[in-house]
Amino acid sequence: MADHPYLQEAGAGFKDRYLTKVSEIIKEYKKDKGQIEGAGMIGAPLSKSSISHSGACLAPQTIRNALGAFTTYAIEEDIDISQVPLYDVGDVEMHMTDIAQSQQRIFETVTSIFRANPSWLPIVLGGDNSVSFPAIKAYAENKGTVGVIQFDAHHDVRNLEDGGPTNGTPFRSLLESKVIEGKNLVQVGIRDFSNSKTYRRYVEEQGGQIYTMKDVRERKITEILSEAMADLVSRVDSVYVSLDMDVVDQSQAPGCPAIGPGGMDTRELFEGISYLGSLKLVGGLEIVEIDPTVDIRDMTSRVAAHVILHFLKAKSICKAL
Amino acid sequence: MADHPYLQEAGAGFKDRYLTKVSEIIKEYKKDKGQIEGAGMIGAPLSKSSISHSGACLAPQTIRNALGAFTTYAIEEDIDISQVPLYDVGDVEMHMTDIAQSQQRIFETVTSIFRANPSWLPIVLGGDNSVSFPAIKAYAENKGTVGVIQFDAHHDVRNLEDGGPTNGTPFRSLLESKVIEGKNLVQVGIRDFSNSKTYRRYVEEQGGQIYTMKDVRERKITEILSEAMADLVSRVDSVYVSLDMDVVDQSQAPGCPAIGPGGMDTRELFEGISYLGSLKLVGGLEIVEIDPTVDIRDMTSRVAAHVILHFLKAKSICKAL
Amino acid sequence: MADHPYLQEAGAGFKDRYLTKVSEIIKEYKKDKGQIEGAGMIGAPLSKSSISHSGACLAPQTIRNALGAFTTYAIEEDIDISQVPLYDVGDVEMHMTDIAQSQQRIFETVTSIFRANPSWLPIVLGGDNSVSFPAIKAYAENKGTVGVIQFDAHHDVRNLEDGGPTNGTPFRSLLESKVIEGKNLVQVGIRDFSNSKTYRRYVEEQGGQIYTMKDVRERKITEILSEAMADLVSRVDSVYVSLDMDVVDQSQAPGCPAIGPGGMDTRELFEGISYLGSLKLVGGLEIVEIDPTVDIRDMTSRVAAHVILHFLKAKSICKAL
Amino acid sequence: MADHPYLQEAGAGFKDRYLTKVSEIIKEYKKDKGQIEGAGMIGAPLSKSSISHSGACLAPQTIRNALGAFTTYAIEEDIDISQVPLYDVGDVEMHMTDIAQSQQRIFETVTSIFRANPSWLPIVLGGDNSVSFPAIKAYAENKGTVGVIQFDAHHDVRNLEDGGPTNGTPFRSLLESKVIEGKNLVQVGIRDFSNSKTYRRYVEEQGGQIYTMKDVRERKITEILSEAMADLVSRVDSVYVSLDMDVVDQSQAPGCPAIGPGGMDTRELFEGISYLGSLKLVGGLEIVEIDPTVDIRDMTSRVAAHVILHFLKAKSICKAL
Amino acid sequence: MADHPYLQEAGAGFKDRYLTKVSEIIKEYKKDKGQIEGAGMIGAPLSKSSISHSGACLAPQTIRNALGAFTTYAIEEDIDISQVPLYDVGDVEMHMTDIAQSQQRIFETVTSIFRANPSWLPIVLGGDNSVSFPAIKAYAENKGTVGVIQFDAHHDVRNLEDGGPTNGTPFRSLLESKVIEGKNLVQVGIRDFSNSKTYRRYVEEQGGQIYTMKDVRERKITEILSEAMADLVSRVDSVYVSLDMDVVDQSQAPGCPAIGPGGMDTRELFEGISYLGSLKLVGGLEIVEIDPTVDIRDMTSRVAAHVILHFLKAKSICKAL
Amino acid sequence: MADHPYLQEAGAGFKDRYLTKVSEIIKEYKKDKGQIEGAGMIGAPLSKSSISHSGACLAPQTIRNALGAFTTYAIEEDIDISQVPLYDVGDVEMHMTDIAQSQQRIFETVTSIFRANPSWLPIVLGGDNSVSFPAIKAYAENKGTVGVIQFDAHHDVRNLEDGGPTNGTPFRSLLESKVIEGKNLVQVGIRDFSNSKTYRRYVEEQGGQIYTMKDVRERKITEILSEAMADLVSRVDSVYVSLDMDVVDQSQAPGCPAIGPGGMDTRELFEGISYLGSLKLVGGLEIVEIDPTVDIRDMTSRVAAHVILHFLKAKSICKAL
Ligand SMILES: [Ca+2]
Ligand SMILES: [Ca+2]
Ligand SMILES: [Ca+2]
Ligand SMILES: [Ca+2]
Ligand SMILES: [Ca+2]
Ligand SMILES: [Ca+2]
Ligand SMILES: [Ca+2]
Ligand SMILES: [Ca+2]
Ligand SMILES: [Ca+2]
Ligand SMILES: [Ca+2]
Ligand SMILES: [Ca+2]
Ligand SMILES: [Ca+2]
Repeated sequence: MADHPYLQEAGAGFKDRYLTKVSEIIKEYKKDKGQIEGAGMIGAPLSKSSISHSGACLAPQTIRNALGAFTTYAIEEDIDISQVPLYDVGDVEMHMTDIAQSQQRIFETVTSIFRANPSWLPIVLGGDNSVSFPAIKAYAENKGTVGVIQFDAHHDVRNLEDGGPTNGTPFRSLLESKVIEGKNLVQVGIRDFSNSKTYRRYVEEQGGQIYTMKDVRERKITEILSEAMADLVSRVDSVYVSLDMDVVDQSQAPGCPAIGPGGMDTRELFEGISYLGSLKLVGGLEIVEIDPTVDIRDMTSRVAAHVILHFLKAKSICKAL
Repeated sequence: MADHPYLQEAGAGFKDRYLTKVSEIIKEYKKDKGQIEGAGMIGAPLSKSSISHSGACLAPQTIRNALGAFTTYAIEEDIDISQVPLYDVGDVEMHMTDIAQSQQRIFETVTSIFRANPSWLPIVLGGDNSVSFPAIKAYAENKGTVGVIQFDAHHDVRNLEDGGPTNGTPFRSLLESKVIEGKNLVQVGIRDFSNSKTYRRYVEEQGGQIYTMKDVRERKITEILSEAMADLVSRVDSVYVSLDMDVVDQSQAPGCPAIGPGGMDTRELFEGISYLGSLKLVGGLEIVEIDPTVDIRDMTSRVAAHVILHFLKAKSICKAL
Repeated sequence: MADHPYLQEAGAGFKDRYLTKVSEIIKEYKKDKGQIEGAGMIGAPLSKSSISHSGACLAPQTIRNALGAFTTYAIEEDIDISQVPLYDVGDVEMHMTDIAQSQQRIFETVTSIFRANPSWLPIVLGGDNSVSFPAIKAYAENKGTVGVIQFDAHHDVRNLEDGGPTNGTPFRSLLESKVIEGKNLVQVGIRDFSNSKTYRRYVEEQGGQIYTMKDVRERKITEILSEAMADLVSRVDSVYVSLDMDVVDQSQAPGCPAIGPGGMDTRELFEGISYLGSLKLVGGLEIVEIDPTVDIRDMTSRVAAHVILHFLKAKSICKAL
Repeated sequence: MADHPYLQEAGAGFKDRYLTKVSEIIKEYKKDKGQIEGAGMIGAPLSKSSISHSGACLAPQTIRNALGAFTTYAIEEDIDISQVPLYDVGDVEMHMTDIAQSQQRIFETVTSIFRANPSWLPIVLGGDNSVSFPAIKAYAENKGTVGVIQFDAHHDVRNLEDGGPTNGTPFRSLLESKVIEGKNLVQVGIRDFSNSKTYRRYVEEQGGQIYTMKDVRERKITEILSEAMADLVSRVDSVYVSLDMDVVDQSQAPGCPAIGPGGMDTRELFEGISYLGSLKLVGGLEIVEIDPTVDIRDMTSRVAAHVILHFLKAKSICKAL
Repeated sequence: MADHPYLQEAGAGFKDRYLTKVSEIIKEYKKDKGQIEGAGMIGAPLSKSSISHSGACLAPQTIRNALGAFTTYAIEEDIDISQVPLYDVGDVEMHMTDIAQSQQRIFETVTSIFRANPSWLPIVLGGDNSVSFPAIKAYAENKGTVGVIQFDAHHDVRNLEDGGPTNGTPFRSLLESKVIEGKNLVQVGIRDFSNSKTYRRYVEEQGGQIYTMKDVRERKITEILSEAMADLVSRVDSVYVSLDMDVVDQSQAPGCPAIGPGGMDTRELFEGISYLGSLKLVGGLEIVEIDPTVDIRDMTSRVAAHVILHFLKAKSICKAL
Repeated sequence: MADHPYLQEAGAGFKDRYLTKVSEIIKEYKKDKGQIEGAGMIGAPLSKSSISHSGACLAPQTIRNALGAFTTYAIEEDIDISQVPLYDVGDVEMHMTDIAQSQQRIFETVTSIFRANPSWLPIVLGGDNSVSFPAIKAYAENKGTVGVIQFDAHHDVRNLEDGGPTNGTPFRSLLESKVIEGKNLVQVGIRDFSNSKTYRRYVEEQGGQIYTMKDVRERKITEILSEAMADLVSRVDSVYVSLDMDVVDQSQAPGCPAIGPGGMDTRELFEGISYLGSLKLVGGLEIVEIDPTVDIRDMTSRVAAHVILHFLKAKSICKAL
């Protein structure tokens, strides 16, 4: 537009030529332009499956927005992640009214992306926690035996008879359908007054490992996670990290449906994610249960963005385990 | 609790002995305690069927709360409606994940209430506009040939192929399933820049009568409605009033998903509802599309409460037609 | 993306194939793809020039968003405006710190667009009212003698000594620089307790015509405007409509910096805009002083969207005068 | 501060030398500096007396702020009220815990101001409606036989046994204590579903005159008020205007505790106030029941400010009756 | 309701049969159904006694709501408190306008509940801090010599001459009326820039023990509290815990009237409450100064709910001291 | 006002005679009433210079308000700062439209205040971070060689070609104009994903010292600062503390434009400020980047108030270094 030197694209903002926003390094995925080599975000905008009213279907966009506004430079380790591949694969299109069909579409789409892109490291952006079942099922079909590190205030193994697959049942579905074995499930950050003894027993009977907030308060998070990983390494082919953001204290992640006090500090969370991201065995990440309609200044989506960035930074200096 | 003279029920507020709150006259419906003779509210808390994210599932409770806080005395006509029966029938229980099943439950439940209570005058509290199809279908099965006066900014006759029965399709479903005939559908308050020519033509081809906001601005609302009723009276056994609250201007009904300027004034709405309520032929009312999560001080639910009260006042002095 | 049937572009929403959203008809302006024939919006995102703190720089995007979500069908006149050209020319890029330079860029950019597109009908999206000076100056250089119909609660002819060209001075600048003659300025909606006698006298001494809210309340708006146009038609080559949204009552346009009661009703505004849009002589429109950061659910931007749509509808059935 | 040319008082804003803000004409009342000749505002910041939780104690300051930001020029009549006296007398200091004592202090303070300033025209800024009893009692002791025009959605004649003098009882107290006679009380704007038949009958038995919202909708407000004044003029020495802001529709006065639809339009209110202010017989005004903690952008305080300004404008061109 | 299988009580939500919500274990207190054995909540909804405007009268309901939504299972200690008795005694009915009478009613009601239920462990839900005087006075009349552990940012020993018993004076009243002796008062969490030297000296002269936030930051909270309890055990018959929620940092308890930075962390608070709850000597708890009208998503009421739950958990495994 | 015992100044609140609010000790600066001896706040209400839309121009007043509501008594050290001088010098008057002129006025005004008050200890209240350049330049001209301790999540050394002196460039300007030498700049709290490698290298090449959040998390803040001060003491005549409030975590300082997780805890900040304030060498403080329009209950301004109070407390017990 040579004749109108000051005319810019509608809505364009300020650009500092010496600073790279994460928005600038995100590559759009086009199947006919080659495969994804590395991390790729995929939105699973489903929250009609939530037990209580939730706007988590809107989170893929608020997380993308929050992510895009941070920069690629990790000063603490003097690493610039601008060369680390980060694709935006798109969103799975939800059916307007058929939730089971929506969940099936998540499974099929994640599966088809893996088929076309064997090196893909998926970062699934929920949506509510119900997306974990189809996402992890597709992950497991591609990866072999899978272990899951689940950050959550809740077990999420509710019975399936009462209302079908909701955001309270994903790990029940995963265990009952044998997608993952109980001994390969590790739950971190489980909180007082937010669960039931029945479901705790269920997880334990399945062989699952539980670390409550008392463990998080009294031990270092990296110590907990390396203990868990040491246990998993001999049994699984790949580890998937599932982050329900309500594991964080309500004062730091106010935009989750089921907020409460007594949760994890973001310093603990970032340290844990950084540790896990640094391990070769860890090959997938999901972030769920952020409802932007009840958040404050998208704070909770900003926490999600830092989780992704710490994960990518760690991936860029990956250790074996 | 004679020993504790100042102890009251938790949450109880101030009671003026000379003033009756509507909350005091609402009767809970108990099947084994006799039939409903007159108006009875039933909640249809479904909004997972909405095209855009909606919290309309929460409206039955906010409307009940707003209603309960007004009084029974209609000073303009010097009528106290405290002897006019008003039941709270309850809510239809929604399925967590199967929307078609939820809609079916609304149909079955309205049907079963009618079977047990032939004199019931239903007041359906949505939920989104998708509840109109099962509600009106059940109404028609009980009443015979039905006419519908639909207050709405939108036609709501979207095609059904793209995403199934949503809050954009109820009147399409009603027409295609022959629950109501096109000539017995009257749409009032249809607004500029909120519809398509295709859907307008569809309504007209079906024989439906359309009054746009231009008609509302230029003619008296009672003149419009009496013209419509004069036309319906010879053809139908009963008339059902469907009120999508977004027919009202955004400044007066800010809590609807699809707000915009150019809408109806509440004075016009109350006058229209009072006219319709005064006619014997009018036997049902629904109020849909209020999303309390985006409302301001429950203003829109308070408008809904006044609609119900004006309707009841008019019913108490019912004219033949 | 044949292999991933449910994968859609990130953030894509529901599409009804029989309904056209205004977002679908807006053409992006590309100079090398031919000229603009008809209306074209241009954003002037400047509010650092405001006397009080204002976020009006964000309004071009919220107006675009609001506009895009309405449909092209004007049911009141049975006109579909989807064939009426509507371009999005883009935003003028503001300097970060040099406000005079930003205003100069508005002038230069509007001028250069006119040079390349002689048939352009500009719709300028502010920004604050300070953008009116450079925008109208550029308009006048292209059109000849210009008359302005200014909807505003305020005269906006503050003295220029105290703080330079602000959102309180645009019409002073236009008059003093002889861009428009006083007798060709018509102010509509001027409000009690919001102005000074000095500035009223100034406008009158310049020959300007003032219609206060008393006139608006007591006469029909179309009568006022046709009186004003009858006066202008013999003297000017073109008429530009300047809409400061604070002319509307605070209950209907809550997102303006200087809100108050006693303002115009949107019914009056839309009727006035529709009348003006229908006249061939009217060749430009601007909407200023919407601050989305203090608005409620973008209500005020939605009013702006309807203003644009009524203007386009009227243009599509243009009368001579 | 000659050495620091750009140093201004902390918080000082922009000053236009040709425009007078109302804040500039308000005179602080200092007893030893002479008497008040004309209007004087006095704050009665009491809302602990409210039946429901209310922040109306904060309204005197938000009304003052809103008032101060408007200008002195009434363009509709070409009158500048900058020479009309407007004093700020201050606030009555409330007792922290003894509500009866607070009400007594309002009575004593208004009385003592009148004693020292016989020409005072009081403008009482509530506070909740309970302040009307002590304020009007003091007014009547000074003025003789008093008539009251009460704008209110509610009668406010609740029984006094249940909870003592609250914001629901002021007119009961005034009638029972014979401060005003029933036939000298005129209630305007009384609303459907907000009152009880018992209290309506009580007002009528006392001889009071009631105009409901139906009267307001169907007749001109000035016609109603001149009818009422014609009746009062022969019987009373002075008329006091009591404005409970909840008489206005909830969309235009959202910041009142007891909001609802079906209320008065501000155009009707301003016309009524202007008419009353223009009469010599009208000698006092109070504005109550604005709770700034639930208001939106102080809209309701801005309406109050315009009420005061229209009242002063009318006073400046006072007619006999 | 056998004929309407999907009809549920209005407003009923989802029920997981393997999980117990606290709302399910709360027993309503009915005097004729036996005595309270254990903890029982009683609401003291008084905040008209606050120095600044406060909505703390609304907190008993928001705390109950928050409490009811958590579950009974304390996973950290593998304890289910569903067998721990928790009664809801109700609210003390406040007088509308007589604050002293309201405070007297709190005293009389707590006293009468104790008389009828000698084993009652009271949990008093304020209300503002002024309720502490009547509540603790009633407690002491029943229990003998009482010690108080007061968590608070402030001393709350203001002089009583200036405004009577407010939320700033409860401990002054308790000391001056000899309800508790100074040496039996322990203040924890007293904060910089929130108090005066005069009042600190007063507490010290009375023999009270003060732990500031510096102590909390530099020592473990359990160390502080066991030091305090070791001192009290020989002198008192019972210890009452008074929690003014503003002792917590503003970022974690945003819904208190007097918020500020530099406060206690909820981890510290929960640890302290758990320690105190585990001691037999501790026989009462109150939570005051939560104003839900300024809170964010009821976060502060959720903190209160966890305080109660930690207290009950500790009580269920009570140690002697 | 002896005759009206309960009449108080409009808006006056409750006064406890034994407690001193900070508002009571702030002295207004009047040049002709003698010099400032000690700390004096000066507002620099400029945020039109911000890259993104910012209301930081409003922060001087919200910080003053927050400060005024705390008390003078520092209980942790048993120090009452009511005798410590604290002046309010006023605000620098900003030009409406010429930002470079506004920045120049800050420089000239700070300079002229120093000239008239050689013992002045400036506390500059921004405004955005762009005010640091003129403020520190004026400080340095008065003090000689200056060192700066900058608390900030960001380096703020953006290039100056792209958009002129903004809130992203102040330290670039200071270094390039040789106002401060690179080796005398210490940046504390620099955060991951918020900066670029280019700008980090720039700071290092200039000789600046950088402490990232990793340092803050892993070392004590006083250890970091005493290391930095030990380095500076031999080279500089005075040290100025620059606090960009976004150094604090978003959960504790939510009212900054560029919020994010991973920031400093207020306990760390207050400890650091207290240490610095205790050193004689430290002679100035500024607080910038608080935008009250996006804050929650002015929490961030309250943090700023505690920063000032901790600084003054430390100054009152000043150590040499
Ligand atoms: Ca969870
Ligand atoms: Ca979960
Ligand atoms: Ca609609
Ligand atoms: Ca509809
Ligand atoms: Ca204006
Ligand atoms: Ca203007
Ligand atoms: Ca009222
Ligand atoms: Ca009233
Ligand atoms: Ca306190
Ligand atoms: Ca306290
Ligand atoms: Ca920064
Ligand atoms: Ca900065």
